[in-house]
Amino acid sequence: MGTAWTPRSRFELNLTRTDSDNVQSEYHSGMTDFHVDGTRLWKTLHQLAEIGATEAGGVARVALTDADRAGRDQFVEWVTELECSVHIDRMGNLFARREGTDPNRDPVVIGSHLDSQPTGGKFDGAYGVMVGLEILRVLSDHGHLTAAPIEVVSWTNEEGARFPPAMLGSGVFGGEFSLEEGLGATAQDGTILVDELTRIGYSGSDPCGDRPVGHYLEPHIEQGPILEASATSVGIVTGVQGIRWYDVSIRGVESHAGTTPMDRRSDAMASAAQLITTVDRIAKSRPDGRSTVGVITSTPSSRNTVAGTVDLTIDLRHPDAEELSRMNDEIVEFANSLNPPASVNQIWYSPPVKFDADVVDAIRDSATHSGFESADIVSGAGHDAVYINRVAPTGMLFIPCEDG
Amino acid sequence: MGTAWTPRSRFELNLTRTDSDNVQSEYHSGMTDFHVDGTRLWKTLHQLAEIGATEAGGVARVALTDADRAGRDQFVEWVTELECSVHIDRMGNLFARREGTDPNRDPVVIGSHLDSQPTGGKFDGAYGVMVGLEILRVLSDHGHLTAAPIEVVSWTNEEGARFPPAMLGSGVFGGEFSLEEGLGATAQDGTILVDELTRIGYSGSDPCGDRPVGHYLEPHIEQGPILEASATSVGIVTGVQGIRWYDVSIRGVESHAGTTPMDRRSDAMASAAQLITTVDRIAKSRPDGRSTVGVITSTPSSRNTVAGTVDLTIDLRHPDAEELSRMNDEIVEFANSLNPPASVNQIWYSPPVKFDADVVDAIRDSATHSGFESADIVSGAGHDAVYINRVAPTGMLFIPCEDG
Repeated sequence: MGTAWTPRSRFELNLTRTDSDNVQSEYHSGMTDFHVDGTRLWKTLHQLAEIGATEAGGVARVALTDADRAGRDQFVEWVTELECSVHIDRMGNLFARREGTDPNRDPVVIGSHLDSQPTGGKFDGAYGVMVGLEILRVLSDHGHLTAAPIEVVSWTNEEGARFPPAMLGSGVFGGEFSLEEGLGATAQDGTILVDELTRIGYSGSDPCGDRPVGHYLEPHIEQGPILEASATSVGIVTGVQGIRWYDVSIRGVESHAGTTPMDRRSDAMASAAQLITTVDRIAKSRPDGRSTVGVITSTPSSRNTVAGTVDLTIDLRHPDAEELSRMNDEIVEFANSLNPPASVNQIWYSPPVKFDADVVDAIRDSATHSGFESADIVSGAGHDAVYINRVAPTGMLFIPCEDG
Repeated sequence: MGTAWTPRSRFELNLTRTDSDNVQSEYHSGMTDFHVDGTRLWKTLHQLAEIGATEAGGVARVALTDADRAGRDQFVEWVTELECSVHIDRMGNLFARREGTDPNRDPVVIGSHLDSQPTGGKFDGAYGVMVGLEILRVLSDHGHLTAAPIEVVSWTNEEGARFPPAMLGSGVFGGEFSLEEGLGATAQDGTILVDELTRIGYSGSDPCGDRPVGHYLEPHIEQGPILEASATSVGIVTGVQGIRWYDVSIRGVESHAGTTPMDRRSDAMASAAQLITTVDRIAKSRPDGRSTVGVITSTPSSRNTVAGTVDLTIDLRHPDAEELSRMNDEIVEFANSLNPPASVNQIWYSPPVKFDADVVDAIRDSATHSGFESADIVSGAGHDAVYINRVAPTGMLFIPCEDG
């Protein structure tokens, strides 16, 4: 999301030839190294970014629009050149499959998503899919057959910009949403997801979610400043923060700014300010805590009237579920102690995710093996990997991205 | 302002016969007491309230509307029955004059305003004008001639609801605004004040502001809770608070609620919350201080985005100009210390007003003499008396008013 990101480095995933069943050795036992072509990957990313290109230098390739179809068509064209088979499930999730030598192996699936926000950046989900494509190309260049099949996936409607909620294709695949919920997702203008999926020709017949996944890898740009600030090339994503969303309402009493003494007020704004400061402090007192109050409104919103009502939102995050729960308790306790008190209602909870330890280790070792400086990182944002993690050993890697 | 106030008591102003030049003895030397007829005053207030009556039980008699004309017409009818002469100045300020016996005396002027907010209460300014009318009636009942003439005034457009700013008729009279500013005041729909004044037939030929005023008295309902809370019948208004209005803007940096660590944020909302809490504390730390943040907006106003910009207002009040200035300095210093800092811009300053000591004492003594419990009070809201205080010895008295 955002506009016109520029990756600071191009992570070159090593592929190693091995027959071992061990996931670690599968990725980095290092018998023969095939390096990806960074220049080709960079060029491909920019070629893809022409589809839905915006004047601001980003892309608008919102899910299931004509631009999304064009992006999918381009991807299909590229993988077809590599003699991959293309598989589309009922949610429109798109898999390019390159067969392996061992019929007993489930595929290693690599990818992310091709859709974007209405004012999206060039790289975001596209980076993960194009890295997958580059890996297919490298294998093809060398005529190398892997033991396990390789599949490159683009999940449908990751952004949720047009059809909320976000991560819908991977969410149905991972069991978070039913197929009915996925297909029935409705845009602001009443359009139904399945109708648009059919219209652009990407309503597949494969069941969504029954597809075997041996391991899932999602390369992505980091949407935060940590890697860039520390000049680290690769972020080893160990998991995703838990998120709690709240709607907060504070009911005081409207009164005259001039004639009402301070000790006779029930000022919703004063309570709101104390709450916001405390919510901020509760996150700051924890190295991995995050809290945000992004929306606030007051009634009657008059310069010389004490606010009768203030409504605000809280976005609370922590990688550890118990710590997130303690943050919740501290906020609720403080909110109740205010005068007027704040009514804090949780409207969404996304538990923290820990990625598969073997996959995380394999990515870290592969980065080290390739000579990149890496740092473990917990993702602050949701990704398709969160839902796929429920059905297969999953991992992510981040690359730094200017102003990402 | 507000709707459907019910006065808790009806202050009965004593009028005493005296030939002294001393303002104190003029009001309370107590040779002969003529009591006002509380029942008649109550009835008159409700009769007036039928003009522009609203379903909510209040009145809508916005300045220079047909309802305002009807209210003025009723007042003129009542004072004409008492053989008063009616004088209208170029701002439409309306004076009912009852001559005195001493041609060297300037009149004692009593009154307030007949216009209301769109959802006004029955009493507000009407109370002051109807008290003046009742005094004329009592004098007439007893066939008593005062030494000084008595004039009952209704100032034009006190509320400023249709033609901002507020207190426009008294403001021109007192020299705050030029006649051109007053006549040229423009409504939201482009209507000019002087056109409406002419349309309703109340554009007078008397110069506005040259009229002699010996003393000015403004009875008014208290718009705050102090008298009601202390069960006091009369508030002796010693002055009006100074008011400073500010527009505050805080520019931080928009960032992702999940991926941006707390120590790498420039969160406009966090600064705003600290500022609001401090502004509240600065007023609370002073017995007579008041501060209000009634309006706040954030950008981009997204639940999971750190606010890039927050704009808010501050209304700051204190009866003492120097103390108000110190409050200003504390706010500005704190605002500059924030990260991101808050830019605090004063957009209006109304200095504190101290009413004439002799008039204040006269009102206090008169209340005591009449057996009413009184308390000194500083008005938190503006009144016509603020501007008339500049050109004549002025005082106000408040009566408590339920939910006022």
